[in-house]
Amino acid sequence: MTEADFIAALRALPLHAGAEALADDAAFLPPDLVLTTDSIAEGVHYLPGTTPQDVAWRLVATNLSDLAAKGARPDGVLLNYPLGDDAWDRAFVAGLREVLARFDCALLGGDTVRLIAGAPRTISLTAIGRASHLPIPRRSGARAGDSIWVAGAIGDAMLGHRLVAAGDLQPGALVAAYLRPQPLVAQGIALAPLVSAMMDVSDGLLIDAARIATASGVTMAIERARVPLSPTFRRVAQGDDAEAALRWGDDYALLFTLPADRHPPVPATMIGRVEASGRFPVTLDGEAPAGALGYQH
Amino acid sequence: MTEADFIAALRALPLHAGAEALADDAAFLPPDLVLTTDSIAEGVHYLPGTTPQDVAWRLVATNLSDLAAKGARPDGVLLNYPLGDDAWDRAFVAGLREVLARFDCALLGGDTVRLIAGAPRTISLTAIGRASHLPIPRRSGARAGDSIWVAGAIGDAMLGHRLVAAGDLQPGALVAAYLRPQPLVAQGIALAPLVSAMMDVSDGLLIDAARIATASGVTMAIERARVPLSPTFRRVAQGDDAEAALRWGDDYALLFTLPADRHPPVPATMIGRVEASGRFPVTLDGEAPAGALGYQH
Repeated sequence: MTEADFIAALRALPLHAGAEALADDAAFLPPDLVLTTDSIAEGVHYLPGTTPQDVAWRLVATNLSDLAAKGARPDGVLLNYPLGDDAWDRAFVAGLREVLARFDCALLGGDTVRLIAGAPRTISLTAIGRASHLPIPRRSGARAGDSIWVAGAIGDAMLGHRLVAAGDLQPGALVAAYLRPQPLVAQGIALAPLVSAMMDVSDGLLIDAARIATASGVTMAIERARVPLSPTFRRVAQGDDAEAALRWGDDYALLFTLPADRHPPVPATMIGRVEASGRFPVTLDGEAPAGALGYQH
Repeated sequence: MTEADFIAALRALPLHAGAEALADDAAFLPPDLVLTTDSIAEGVHYLPGTTPQDVAWRLVATNLSDLAAKGARPDGVLLNYPLGDDAWDRAFVAGLREVLARFDCALLGGDTVRLIAGAPRTISLTAIGRASHLPIPRRSGARAGDSIWVAGAIGDAMLGHRLVAAGDLQPGALVAAYLRPQPLVAQGIALAPLVSAMMDVSDGLLIDAARIATASGVTMAIERARVPLSPTFRRVAQGDDAEAALRWGDDYALLFTLPADRHPPVPATMIGRVEASGRFPVTLDGEAPAGALGYQH
């Protein structure tokens, strides 16, 4: 089964009112709790050989990025961990300590299983946050005429991934963008009262924009030249990197829409306009994007 | 690392106030949320060949049993699932539907990863409940002079496991006790306002009694002859089965202590007395139990 088929099958189950019909990255539990869970698998979500500290960082950061997109303040995490390699396990705990302290989040509990010898690790984390504004931002609120914005940069993580895969550690800013993504928690809290829709960019800007489009029943019209690429990206990028970056995940930027008369209270870049639903959920300079939109699970 | 070493290392992290110092099966999040997470691994927590429906049941039931021990009413669950085998996945969803409906619980969200070909499945579930009584029951409240009680029967799951491993399906009551454990949610809710300490029996009566003893700073003095064994257990048991049952997990009974003047409002069996801390955390008919106390992770 694909993930989409599986989610479709799960929709036949008793669904919690806060499950958002399983169409969102986070669940809402009254009065103000936001819950999300993500699993990270060696070879899929991180390269074999990634340090345990970096794996811990990524695991927590990806979950907190889902909370950030809801304007939620991180509170606690529950960990599901496969035990079995002393040195790796100790280094993972050290990394967990670092990332939890950095984002003012605390361990609530967890469970361990025994690591299967020779099998890739899968580690799961459930993060709980408190909404800073109600209702929490959803994917479904974008309206024709809204402007489309990105907080954070697109593509640095893609180049960072390429560098790490090749064994390079410079430029450090790109490597860090990939290995140590920064969930935009403060930005999400500042934006939550203002946005009509918001999500984090985890699977690629275009595919995530398409998800807002589908949930909202609109078309997201993006202008290529406006997509925020960092100075380092522009310096290092080659060939069609800028185009590929639109389809690459791991950015953990925030993608949001605002009514046309509003401006974001945090640094952000306007990348296009929401239009009435047209032939395509997303357009790039007025045309359907070529090829895949992003990472499909 | 053993699980105990890992938990000790985790205690150096920023711990949530509700984490109960990682010494309990569930976390508490004000004002009234109880959270628990359990992972289930093929070959460890269930026999290879167990039907996906039974695996789904066990996964949910073990988590809800942790909520039951806190007197919490199940609310929602988050699932971390390895996708990859169509028929198995569909049957798992069907089983999940059945068990969620049975215990009036709903799906809140989740995440999938790709199942590694040939690797045993590990599935994680995080369950969220609402406390029916505050403060929630803990392991640490047992006091010398309290009586020790069990709601539910000890040992049926052990015999059921043996039958299933041998390919037998009778007696059905024992097989069901193993394959379809029943979390004692209503009992936990009824007991929560009265108990001085409570937990569910998941790793074995003696080891779980020792955990209450350690958390409370007491000795749990248990009388063998009082331990509740079902009529079917007594009919089928052989050799030292009754003794082994004290050290076998999977019962999902509730083990609790009550001030001496209180009686439980649900069917339960008094199995002993709490004593001031002595040489051993648990005694059986006044002596230290021989051998291992139960299942050590």
